[in-house]
Amino acid sequence: VSGAADIPTIGVFDSGFGGLTVLRALVSRMPQAHFAFLGDTARLPYGSKSRRTIARYAADSAQFLVREQGAEFLVIACNTASALALDAIQDAVPVPVLGVIEPGAAAAKAASRGGDVLVIATDATVQSHAYASACRAQALRALEKACPLLVPLVEEGWTDHPVTAEVIRIYLDELTQDAASKGLHPDTLVLGCTHYPLLRSAIERAVPTGVRVIDSADAAADAAVRLFGDGADRIAVDPAPESSLRCSSLRCFATDSVEKFERLGSRFLGCPVGKVELVDLGG
Amino acid sequence: VSGAADIPTIGVFDSGFGGLTVLRALVSRMPQAHFAFLGDTARLPYGSKSRRTIARYAADSAQFLVREQGAEFLVIACNTASALALDAIQDAVPVPVLGVIEPGAAAAKAASRGGDVLVIATDATVQSHAYASACRAQALRALEKACPLLVPLVEEGWTDHPVTAEVIRIYLDELTQDAASKGLHPDTLVLGCTHYPLLRSAIERAVPTGVRVIDSADAAADAAVRLFGDGADRIAVDPAPESSLRCSSLRCFATDSVEKFERLGSRFLGCPVGKVELVDLGG
Repeated sequence: VSGAADIPTIGVFDSGFGGLTVLRALVSRMPQAHFAFLGDTARLPYGSKSRRTIARYAADSAQFLVREQGAEFLVIACNTASALALDAIQDAVPVPVLGVIEPGAAAAKAASRGGDVLVIATDATVQSHAYASACRAQALRALEKACPLLVPLVEEGWTDHPVTAEVIRIYLDELTQDAASKGLHPDTLVLGCTHYPLLRSAIERAVPTGVRVIDSADAAADAAVRLFGDGADRIAVDPAPESSLRCSSLRCFATDSVEKFERLGSRFLGCPVGKVELVDLGG
Repeated sequence: VSGAADIPTIGVFDSGFGGLTVLRALVSRMPQAHFAFLGDTARLPYGSKSRRTIARYAADSAQFLVREQGAEFLVIACNTASALALDAIQDAVPVPVLGVIEPGAAAAKAASRGGDVLVIATDATVQSHAYASACRAQALRALEKACPLLVPLVEEGWTDHPVTAEVIRIYLDELTQDAASKGLHPDTLVLGCTHYPLLRSAIERAVPTGVRVIDSADAAADAAVRLFGDGADRIAVDPAPESSLRCSSLRCFATDSVEKFERLGSRFLGCPVGKVELVDLGG
């Protein structure tokens, strides 16, 4: 079930739909590649679960993409799985695996002048302190905050809603006050969850003046191009990405309710996801 | 691992913590019984998943309580599992099984004068129309509405928060306008999710004057007393329930993160849950 012999398949994995924002960024940069996307929707959300459980679920999912779909590269389009299970996934499959945390931290490094950055993410991502570690490796100081209501608000479709604006204001006020009390002067905010790009404009309206918003989905796609793209001489890179979304080969899989995936998925991908295939990972 | 020979064990099952509101109501009525509670926290929430997936998870959980913990009765303290998987659970175990939907509808029947009732619940419960069917069997007309943000708001701890009050106002406004457009004159609102009792006072402030709020957790506990209580001559029923919570024998199990369960569980149970034991259902 792999793609044509000379065009490799990139496997993209998320616990749900959010990773489609990463897929969108990947497709716009490498429209010639074959993509296989798996949303482990029967077991979402990962963001409230433990490292052990997330690692087990993520390894199952990665093995499906490599063994069943012939993926030659994997992008973990889920901050929680990247934060808690990147090692477990790398151990589970024999192909290169790229997470979203390191690229997000590298993009924050490129954006920040002062070196103090803020990160918003799920509970599990924050508790792992994966962003703080990745930022420290880039000589950045990072302050992380869990924003558990933002994913449900996106999934309710309230992306441009006064309640969502108020929740964002509350979370960002708490975060900036905490930063001030610690003597930090942040100039960069990392969106450390693949749902958050759908709230980007609301978040940009709520951040203090002078703070740049970094999307880890875009950062991961740029890193994927460097890792899997022209350098590998097998995947052409679009010189003018994001102009329009066209994908020559995309198969989408979900572990639950393909109808819901088809309905919500297009909101994240920015175009119809097509027919979604149901898979059973035995969970 | 069953209880003492002459005191039966009641198994109580939920996808997460919300069912502890049902457990609380059960313990207050039958403090002498032995209880085994399982929260399938590794696979929560059920409310956004499909019938097939929910039935599989719920049957696993029911079998654990009966086979491993010796439960002689089961209470499905989860509206979603009761709505979508009661038959599957009854097929999976050889003991009496009580859900929360029928008792909730019966309590609505007792409370409603006009016969028009409103039900708020998760997406999956509403899409199953289990409450509408159960209410129809009681000669009630029911209008159901999914309120997917309420569970995350409770889990964020925002039970007494202006954002939560506003979300409740929006949901109930939409529901009462929908009822008016259909010519209904509701006088009763059923809380069709075991998380919602923690929002009861906020919901009571938001419902139109004259609408009574019915808690399916209380209704299910009353039904359990009739089914498993003095009638069975083996479980004493407290004549003055809810005065204080004391439980002679309670074991709590979770499929993920016992720390989170211990922290959040006491908020739902109304007293410490004690040591929570981790179980692996293979999911």
